[in-house]
Amino acid sequence: MPLSVAVAGASGYAGGELLRLLAGHPEFSIGTLTAHSNAGQSLVSVQPHLRSLAGHVLVPTDAHNLAGHDVVFLALPHGASAAIAAELDGDTLVIDCGADHRLESSADWAAFYSGDHAGTWAYGVPELPLAPGIDPLHLGATKQRERIVGTRRIAAPGCNASTVALSIAPGIAAGVIQPTDIVSVLAVGPSGAGRALKQNLLAGEILGSANPYGIGGVHRHIPEILQSLRWAGAVDPTISFTPVLVPMSRGILATSTAVLTPGVTAAEVRAAWELAYAGEPFVQLLPAGEFPRTADVLGANTALLGLAIDEAAGRVVVIAAVDNLAKGTAGAAIQSANIALGFEETLGLPLDGVAP
Amino acid sequence: MPLSVAVAGASGYAGGELLRLLAGHPEFSIGTLTAHSNAGQSLVSVQPHLRSLAGHVLVPTDAHNLAGHDVVFLALPHGASAAIAAELDGDTLVIDCGADHRLESSADWAAFYSGDHAGTWAYGVPELPLAPGIDPLHLGATKQRERIVGTRRIAAPGCNASTVALSIAPGIAAGVIQPTDIVSVLAVGPSGAGRALKQNLLAGEILGSANPYGIGGVHRHIPEILQSLRWAGAVDPTISFTPVLVPMSRGILATSTAVLTPGVTAAEVRAAWELAYAGEPFVQLLPAGEFPRTADVLGANTALLGLAIDEAAGRVVVIAAVDNLAKGTAGAAIQSANIALGFEETLGLPLDGVAP
Amino acid sequence: MPLSVAVAGASGYAGGELLRLLAGHPEFSIGTLTAHSNAGQSLVSVQPHLRSLAGHVLVPTDAHNLAGHDVVFLALPHGASAAIAAELDGDTLVIDCGADHRLESSADWAAFYSGDHAGTWAYGVPELPLAPGIDPLHLGATKQRERIVGTRRIAAPGCNASTVALSIAPGIAAGVIQPTDIVSVLAVGPSGAGRALKQNLLAGEILGSANPYGIGGVHRHIPEILQSLRWAGAVDPTISFTPVLVPMSRGILATSTAVLTPGVTAAEVRAAWELAYAGEPFVQLLPAGEFPRTADVLGANTALLGLAIDEAAGRVVVIAAVDNLAKGTAGAAIQSANIALGFEETLGLPLDGVAP
Amino acid sequence: MPLSVAVAGASGYAGGELLRLLAGHPEFSIGTLTAHSNAGQSLVSVQPHLRSLAGHVLVPTDAHNLAGHDVVFLALPHGASAAIAAELDGDTLVIDCGADHRLESSADWAAFYSGDHAGTWAYGVPELPLAPGIDPLHLGATKQRERIVGTRRIAAPGCNASTVALSIAPGIAAGVIQPTDIVSVLAVGPSGAGRALKQNLLAGEILGSANPYGIGGVHRHIPEILQSLRWAGAVDPTISFTPVLVPMSRGILATSTAVLTPGVTAAEVRAAWELAYAGEPFVQLLPAGEFPRTADVLGANTALLGLAIDEAAGRVVVIAAVDNLAKGTAGAAIQSANIALGFEETLGLPLDGVAP
Repeated sequence: MPLSVAVAGASGYAGGELLRLLAGHPEFSIGTLTAHSNAGQSLVSVQPHLRSLAGHVLVPTDAHNLAGHDVVFLALPHGASAAIAAELDGDTLVIDCGADHRLESSADWAAFYSGDHAGTWAYGVPELPLAPGIDPLHLGATKQRERIVGTRRIAAPGCNASTVALSIAPGIAAGVIQPTDIVSVLAVGPSGAGRALKQNLLAGEILGSANPYGIGGVHRHIPEILQSLRWAGAVDPTISFTPVLVPMSRGILATSTAVLTPGVTAAEVRAAWELAYAGEPFVQLLPAGEFPRTADVLGANTALLGLAIDEAAGRVVVIAAVDNLAKGTAGAAIQSANIALGFEETLGLPLDGVAP
Repeated sequence: MPLSVAVAGASGYAGGELLRLLAGHPEFSIGTLTAHSNAGQSLVSVQPHLRSLAGHVLVPTDAHNLAGHDVVFLALPHGASAAIAAELDGDTLVIDCGADHRLESSADWAAFYSGDHAGTWAYGVPELPLAPGIDPLHLGATKQRERIVGTRRIAAPGCNASTVALSIAPGIAAGVIQPTDIVSVLAVGPSGAGRALKQNLLAGEILGSANPYGIGGVHRHIPEILQSLRWAGAVDPTISFTPVLVPMSRGILATSTAVLTPGVTAAEVRAAWELAYAGEPFVQLLPAGEFPRTADVLGANTALLGLAIDEAAGRVVVIAAVDNLAKGTAGAAIQSANIALGFEETLGLPLDGVAP
Repeated sequence: MPLSVAVAGASGYAGGELLRLLAGHPEFSIGTLTAHSNAGQSLVSVQPHLRSLAGHVLVPTDAHNLAGHDVVFLALPHGASAAIAAELDGDTLVIDCGADHRLESSADWAAFYSGDHAGTWAYGVPELPLAPGIDPLHLGATKQRERIVGTRRIAAPGCNASTVALSIAPGIAAGVIQPTDIVSVLAVGPSGAGRALKQNLLAGEILGSANPYGIGGVHRHIPEILQSLRWAGAVDPTISFTPVLVPMSRGILATSTAVLTPGVTAAEVRAAWELAYAGEPFVQLLPAGEFPRTADVLGANTALLGLAIDEAAGRVVVIAAVDNLAKGTAGAAIQSANIALGFEETLGLPLDGVAP
Repeated sequence: MPLSVAVAGASGYAGGELLRLLAGHPEFSIGTLTAHSNAGQSLVSVQPHLRSLAGHVLVPTDAHNLAGHDVVFLALPHGASAAIAAELDGDTLVIDCGADHRLESSADWAAFYSGDHAGTWAYGVPELPLAPGIDPLHLGATKQRERIVGTRRIAAPGCNASTVALSIAPGIAAGVIQPTDIVSVLAVGPSGAGRALKQNLLAGEILGSANPYGIGGVHRHIPEILQSLRWAGAVDPTISFTPVLVPMSRGILATSTAVLTPGVTAAEVRAAWELAYAGEPFVQLLPAGEFPRTADVLGANTALLGLAIDEAAGRVVVIAAVDNLAKGTAGAAIQSANIALGFEETLGLPLDGVAP
């Protein structure tokens, strides 16, 4: 019998993508869907692409409406998750797609966000390496997925952080690159910023233009990236991180570079990534000389990586393509749920992109 | 009396932009326009946006047709310029918009291009700093514009190289950043690749996607960037350079970072760029906290820069927005012509972008 | 045991979409994949979004390679299907995604295409109404789906023709609109024109622009539209049909208008469409006042319609949104296969779009 | 000595385009610039593409700030113009870029807008034909431009209305098409809807999608179109008018069709448009078989038309490409000012588009 699932924030972009994927998941049955200003409307009037969920109506976002489900996905604005989660039963699997519970360090939270730190939930980009001794609760764990097995409160990873950490962590874990002086520049689609009414997200501002934001070390995803890199074994990692909005609805194309460890061979470098993701269905390293495009992962729970070594620059260059709403958010959340609940990890998650 | 101007390669994107700008230039009169496969057609049948040039007809590209003009702009595929230029009168100002004559080093040419090196012509991004003693022919020169004054063979700078060198050179000239380990990632529109029929330039491949290319130190614009950085005073500069095609017709949004020299203050860093471009109409540093978008320079001969200091990463981050066809190619060529001919440097060159 | 399926033309956009959908179809097993210039390459090197089909290699397109399958999908250029189909076993279900076998009238073929008419195969947009007496082979049939039940040679409907016919036919079948003087204007994404190297399909030509083509009654899809309208009961239908390429990779947004029959009420008009598509999962009429967007059907086998009555103009306006590659081509072909083979018609076909 | 010009609403898209064009106009000197929520900021902080106007600061929009100029352009939300204009000196040329004063008929205003009708100002798309006897104040006038000569209160035409009326009026004036049952469908960029914060204008909603709006005879530009068609001689014209938002920042691609008058020849039809626009620099009919694209007029005050006759459908098809912000709004307003003030009509207005 399928588990009942509620989604809070079903009228937003992340909520819509959760529902698109949940509608095809064989072990979940979609229950209560909540929204804020759209409460009272039918789901399809707000998310007209979700034809298979035509009967559903949005109700107000509160713990009462969300209670009584096996799984609750929270796709809410920053700061709204903790209060609701506190009222939900401890046996309910609650997965927060927002940033509130991702960081272990309250100092990091204070430095990059405003307001009180809501606390730390289990967090894991399943495919990311864990360095030996990093996670005392899961002896022998070698991937972050171990961090969320059996848990009931999960902070789903952020799209930019997942993409960059997946690009860089294998080289750090293997010691073939330096953890300091990483540089990442991302071309990102505006859906990652949500459905909020902001002038910089108007089509007139985005069409035909490339618009940077969060420049100079102030972007909120930086501490989340560094946290994952530390878990992969990095000591005092540093990163220059710059996202650039480009005119595509979805997608992250991250170009990340790191300094090669002196003396390593090109084969050793490539082997670090190959080994890290061998057997991983959702994170794939392309053959040498091939690099991914965001269209190739549109709608998929897949991260594609391409790797080159620039000997003159002394750096490895890793290109990663991720759909910010799928593998970057909703797919990651469902993958986390699969892991936490003991389902097959790939259940209900598409591997193929929609291209062109 | 205006000077007569010919354009070879008038059917391409660079040729079209040259003509759009030349049509409004008060000192030039448009003469012969040549093309390859489109010879015999009217210009507006191939460049339907150039209504003011409705009477012009394309003739075949050869030295005979191009002879007898005061100025000849070559907007031809790589390798096609040298033979034609050799047949043109030495007093004719010839400006090559292609790469054939940009590099001083034949070894660089051999490493990044194929075929013989056609030789070196005068080259200059006018606003770029020249380190003392770099240019023996122009004692006291402090900007690259001095390199092209009075010359008759000019290699116009490439779009990516101009954009990155403008972003980085002031810091090198001032000693506030290190010349090694520069990292640049560019979001670029596909018009920079020309009007050639290649599958990766089809709309179906570009729309809705971000597509990297030339990854890992192999892009042909790298030696041109490093040449300008050396002229600004860099010793053994290195750069990791990655362009990403994004779905906008024009524009380059370059994110460039470099390691801060230990001990410099934020004010010293910003001052390096402010001084370098003080009084330059076409290269402007935005106030602290502001960063440019490519839409802001669409159609303009303007490069806009924004600068941030990331203390945690130990790097300066410079964002530059340039229209690859305007300031990146055709505007740069006309600005070069203005300089070479002793006209006011800004003549016929738009400062304002077309936005949104 | 699943049926074995071959796809000819697997390297194009239609072929890629067929494979994306076939990969998730529970009754089909993917066999031989053929291509022309890409033969010998792996499928994912050409279609990098199809990660689940990573092991497949493209072989040359010929009848020998395509033989021995239960189902063969042909996604080939115009004119290439007939010769290959002639060599395939008569029991093999062959579905042609091209136009070669769609038209009943050889005169129509001669007027709009070049070369010999390859002949007529079974054709049906499943949801379209059939007027009484139109189809003598299927007494009592009221939908086009009856035309393909049990057949082994099927001409899959074209994307523009399906979209326009679905928009208009119900009103004709019900007599609430006139069959003459229909006007349809379509905003279409360039993927519908395939992956061919044509200058008008370059990203530089499409980005930031709306480009009409096939204007003035010459577009090849016109006779196919009129054929369906005649089957719905139209006597001497006429249509002004204009497609406009717009900068989105996929999608058709058709605005179709027809003259209201004098005396009909608004309720009667709406009822015609409601009745025609009641119970149809893949063709849905939105509530009054709602109109579809192409993003709502991206990747889905769904056609969404919105309808308004313009009393001052004396016309009904029907807006239809269809994904040209999914419901417009590959989804239609698979839906046809489901019908021909007696499978559930919805098998393997997504109802929900990928938005935003 | 140049005339002083003020712009109210300088922070919006129309205001920005006015300033881009005014900055290059030889007879105007830019004075006061006003805004609402952005008052107090520098112009370039809000319109960063207007580098040549770097010194200007926005002040609040009120009659006091706008007083004392020779010319005032109003680029304000609907309903805001009348009160301000009433306080400006009668000798000041006031040009309203909004809809408030365009309609002669208060009944039309009441039917399509809300609130009181502000009254009627001089209105004219300069190139549109006037039927004999239509305009008693200007005996012998044959174009709408005569309506605004010497006036001091001008309602600048709307972008959609200009585009459609320019497409259709010549045929009506010449009697070669019928004034009833016109059908127009427009692909439009979202900048025409202004810089307002509305969910349907978010980039996430527009990118990759075609979105219709104002469907079924309710769009506010309909009475303005019909007013121009009546002035061209139409008796009881009717139009089905549907705009579709597509993912390009600017541009209108209007496909308009009308019923051919029985018995007219193709040559007579084409001649109607050729004659109407012979000698008009800003409205050009392309040769038979050529059709315009919006990129060809980006940033230009040019309307390009292409015409085809569909004999089977009994309709003429006219494709028109216009930049909604240039010829559609700001260019039209400046062209009106040139006419009203007795300047050369083309002064300061670009003919060439910015493409690709």
